[in-house]
Amino acid sequence: MERTTPRVDTKNMTVRITTALVFGVFFFSLLWFGDRLWASWTYLAVMALAILLGVREMTLMARVRGFSPSLATGTLVGWGILAHFFLATGGQDPLPLWLVFTVGALVIHFGALFFDANLEEALPSQAITWLGALYLGFGLGFQQKLFMLQDTLPRTGSRLILALFIITWFGDSAAYFVGTFLGRHKLAPRVSPKKSWEGALGNLGGNLLGAFLMQATVCPKWTWVDALALGLLLGIVGQLGDLVESTWKRSAGVKDSCMGVSIPGHGGVLDRVDSLVFAAPVLFAYVHFVHGFN
Amino acid sequence: MERTTPRVDTKNMTVRITTALVFGVFFFSLLWFGDRLWASWTYLAVMALAILLGVREMTLMARVRGFSPSLATGTLVGWGILAHFFLATGGQDPLPLWLVFTVGALVIHFGALFFDANLEEALPSQAITWLGALYLGFGLGFQQKLFMLQDTLPRTGSRLILALFIITWFGDSAAYFVGTFLGRHKLAPRVSPKKSWEGALGNLGGNLLGAFLMQATVCPKWTWVDALALGLLLGIVGQLGDLVESTWKRSAGVKDSCMGVSIPGHGGVLDRVDSLVFAAPVLFAYVHFVHGFN
Repeated sequence: MERTTPRVDTKNMTVRITTALVFGVFFFSLLWFGDRLWASWTYLAVMALAILLGVREMTLMARVRGFSPSLATGTLVGWGILAHFFLATGGQDPLPLWLVFTVGALVIHFGALFFDANLEEALPSQAITWLGALYLGFGLGFQQKLFMLQDTLPRTGSRLILALFIITWFGDSAAYFVGTFLGRHKLAPRVSPKKSWEGALGNLGGNLLGAFLMQATVCPKWTWVDALALGLLLGIVGQLGDLVESTWKRSAGVKDSCMGVSIPGHGGVLDRVDSLVFAAPVLFAYVHFVHGFN
Repeated sequence: MERTTPRVDTKNMTVRITTALVFGVFFFSLLWFGDRLWASWTYLAVMALAILLGVREMTLMARVRGFSPSLATGTLVGWGILAHFFLATGGQDPLPLWLVFTVGALVIHFGALFFDANLEEALPSQAITWLGALYLGFGLGFQQKLFMLQDTLPRTGSRLILALFIITWFGDSAAYFVGTFLGRHKLAPRVSPKKSWEGALGNLGGNLLGAFLMQATVCPKWTWVDALALGLLLGIVGQLGDLVESTWKRSAGVKDSCMGVSIPGHGGVLDRVDSLVFAAPVLFAYVHFVHGFN
């Protein structure tokens, strides 16, 4: 098989790390004050912005193929799903999901009847509007839900969000370095030609390292079974989620999800959230069923 | 504008009415025994079958365009949404929607990674799989929910389902006859060339007639405001829902949603449920917010 010289792009890496640092300082401050009311609202604002940017990238990606999903209605429904998670606390559910979907269906489909000038692509366009709303709305809505969870330890939500990010990022970084230096056997050449089995295993190793680090520090209540299970679960789901987003980009014929606006050194929003979008619901399901969080 | 001779296709009409009678006898028996446990289960079986057939029609329709949505995963997720509505009774919610969507996302997207041979169309295909699951799952899931509602009057759910069908059918029939004999001004030539403004107004007249008939007979608790509001709401939403389905068929280049299997004289399942799918959630939302049903 083809073999390229191992090479780390140092210039891009510098921009990438700088951006990560700036974002990191903001983000860790938010986690530090996680129990304050304003922190929940700030997190909400960040998630709402990310939903808008993510739906925008999906919309632009689909337009490359001639489809015409709606940025406006997709974002509105995504925000509706986010609002459901923001408002559903302490056994109350003032904006139930069935209501979001009922109003969402009227908004997306009737909106298309009146405002979509390209009804020749009605079926795929309206379907992709929904996909954007679901993908970003649930993916980031579950982050909001996790951030707002409360328990006996202070800042429980912040701890879980930190665990979500550290487990995912440790995996991403390990995959990058292991794949670059040791990658031999292609993982999914049809979908993502740069990925190797070595990188995927490195990814899981990073996930597990991250999970046990979290157990040793901010999540002292986790058993070693929790750390093992979460490392493997989030690692597998995150990597498959990454591949899913790659298939979408390939099917649209774009290499990078960012279309115009990008996070410096990090590409588009979709490229950044693709693992987290699947990992967040799975982490919530785990702490819901295993640890009784609600 | 173009003018065709008013004409009622009597042969097709005979088959159509015969099928409607057979279905009607089965259906009214089910409504008659609406308070029995087996009736809920039978209704569930009918809804599950309709979801399967409806997702199948959407899948085949999309395949005409070269997309490859998954019948298996779309049906499974549609059934998951139906099961949520079936199980959510008396304040209990053993299969919450967030769980259906979390598992559904893994099933649809990871399923596509492993089993979709046509990943060149990954974005529209996976989006259309979701659209089928949402459209049929919520559209028919809300019927199940309505059918199982209980109140002081016996068979409350049956009364609401009867109202849903009568209001919709009276509207459809009125539109057909008024449109055939008086139709002059095209309503939406781009989407559904046969529809006229006269037919649409006839539709609303039929909806209102149906609603006041229901108020006078099986829904004695409705005020005249309820009858007026429900006639107008279900009529408008039902007609727009009908147009939405037409845009999908047009975008796929098919005239009839039925692909192979059809209901004799009635075309495909999608053509039969297109108004109901939007009307059912709106009827539930109305009785939830106005009459306090839960």
